[in-house]
Amino acid sequence: MEQRVSFKVYYEDTDSLGVVYYANYFKFMERGRTEFVGAHGRSVAQWNAEGVLVVVHSVQAQFKKPAVLGDIIDVVSSFSVVSAYRGRFTQRLTRAATGELCVDATVDIVCLDTNQNLIELPAGLRELAS
Amino acid sequence: MEQRVSFKVYYEDTDSLGVVYYANYFKFMERGRTEFVGAHGRSVAQWNAEGVLVVVHSVQAQFKKPAVLGDIIDVVSSFSVVSAYRGRFTQRLTRAATGELCVDATVDIVCLDTNQNLIELPAGLRELAS
Amino acid sequence: MEQRVSFKVYYEDTDSLGVVYYANYFKFMERGRTEFVGAHGRSVAQWNAEGVLVVVHSVQAQFKKPAVLGDIIDVVSSFSVVSAYRGRFTQRLTRAATGELCVDATVDIVCLDTNQNLIELPAGLRELAS
Amino acid sequence: MEQRVSFKVYYEDTDSLGVVYYANYFKFMERGRTEFVGAHGRSVAQWNAEGVLVVVHSVQAQFKKPAVLGDIIDVVSSFSVVSAYRGRFTQRLTRAATGELCVDATVDIVCLDTNQNLIELPAGLRELAS
Repeated sequence: MEQRVSFKVYYEDTDSLGVVYYANYFKFMERGRTEFVGAHGRSVAQWNAEGVLVVVHSVQAQFKKPAVLGDIIDVVSSFSVVSAYRGRFTQRLTRAATGELCVDATVDIVCLDTNQNLIELPAGLRELAS
Repeated sequence: MEQRVSFKVYYEDTDSLGVVYYANYFKFMERGRTEFVGAHGRSVAQWNAEGVLVVVHSVQAQFKKPAVLGDIIDVVSSFSVVSAYRGRFTQRLTRAATGELCVDATVDIVCLDTNQNLIELPAGLRELAS
Repeated sequence: MEQRVSFKVYYEDTDSLGVVYYANYFKFMERGRTEFVGAHGRSVAQWNAEGVLVVVHSVQAQFKKPAVLGDIIDVVSSFSVVSAYRGRFTQRLTRAATGELCVDATVDIVCLDTNQNLIELPAGLRELAS
Repeated sequence: MEQRVSFKVYYEDTDSLGVVYYANYFKFMERGRTEFVGAHGRSVAQWNAEGVLVVVHSVQAQFKKPAVLGDIIDVVSSFSVVSAYRGRFTQRLTRAATGELCVDATVDIVCLDTNQNLIELPAGLRELAS
């Protein structure tokens, strides 16, 4: 299961080198994960309300071609289960106009309860990997 | 002429009080102005490429009801010409689900050339007020 | 009582026009208010812990000269009481190297309890105006 | 050669889960690299002015304990040369009050000329590894 969502690059995303600031790609990635989760059952806000906090455990990202003001960035996300406690998003960010790869990333997530204790991935999240 | 564009609130927009961080509403407003300008001729990036930088001169904003994670914010923008050198965006940000007003703002813009000198609003921008 | 605090401009603050992105000046202003409050009794986090949320009611800001990457911005803040329910920060952001004024702003704040109900400014905040 | 710089967590850095938003740690890391480079010769802005753009090639980061509003984060950075074209920052972000590790990261950087072509690391940057 792979999902594609698209977002435009605005001034807020850029820096004085004229391209998207590297930390801001992680915002695009998080929007992609939020849409991925929300499209398959509960929204992230609903998971929070049920006491399940989905948080980032680790990231690996390679920056390839920069995106610039006005670009549409396609965020393509898929999900797999690494262990009872850990899920993995594979995410590619490409410039919609050219298909060029901007960022290639792996984002591992874990779940916490409201006391910040690690819990197993709930079934509703594990199912995202199907 | 009034334009409505909509954006979802993601984690990046919120702060630890559980609502959208006040400075981030200005990002939503800038997205609204970018879409407004782009829908009526040249995009902001094209204006830049032609040597016309559209920059914010001043803002007035009142914060009413807070938006929260997952909300859709409608940004409703209109434009008027204040003088040969100054344009004014009137912008309202509302929660799409309830229509509640989040932010009520006035944003004055001016144009600079690439040497940062003030120039008259080009005809293509003045026409946005019609 | 006036307080000056200083912050450097990093890439995160800039945009592709090569200057500080307008919304980000509001972050500098919020840092200035946080330091102002924290220097005179309780920190903002402590006020929150006591159930007093200090939130922005409205802002007026004029953007004068842009700041650029590597600049040190001085944030000079003072505080006055407008009414039992409203306080006002007057804030000037200047480039430390030249003294040039970047932003001139007025920020009105109000206090909410943890149910988001408006409450009177507590004595500890009113005293900031002395 | 290791360098420690410290930054406070403000509202802008947090999200509605009550902790620092994951993408914003990358801002702290970039501030750390900027200070590291600037402390040993030319500032990043000066490198840019000489036509050398230092950009992030890839990152690996593990998120350990979250930081919260008001925390001081220590950013400890060191630098090594991976190849003629690539340098590596090793960066740890810790809460100053407790020494707890927040983020453990490796950030590889490369240099581009103003035409976005890859160039060898200039001697002035390679020396940061000594």
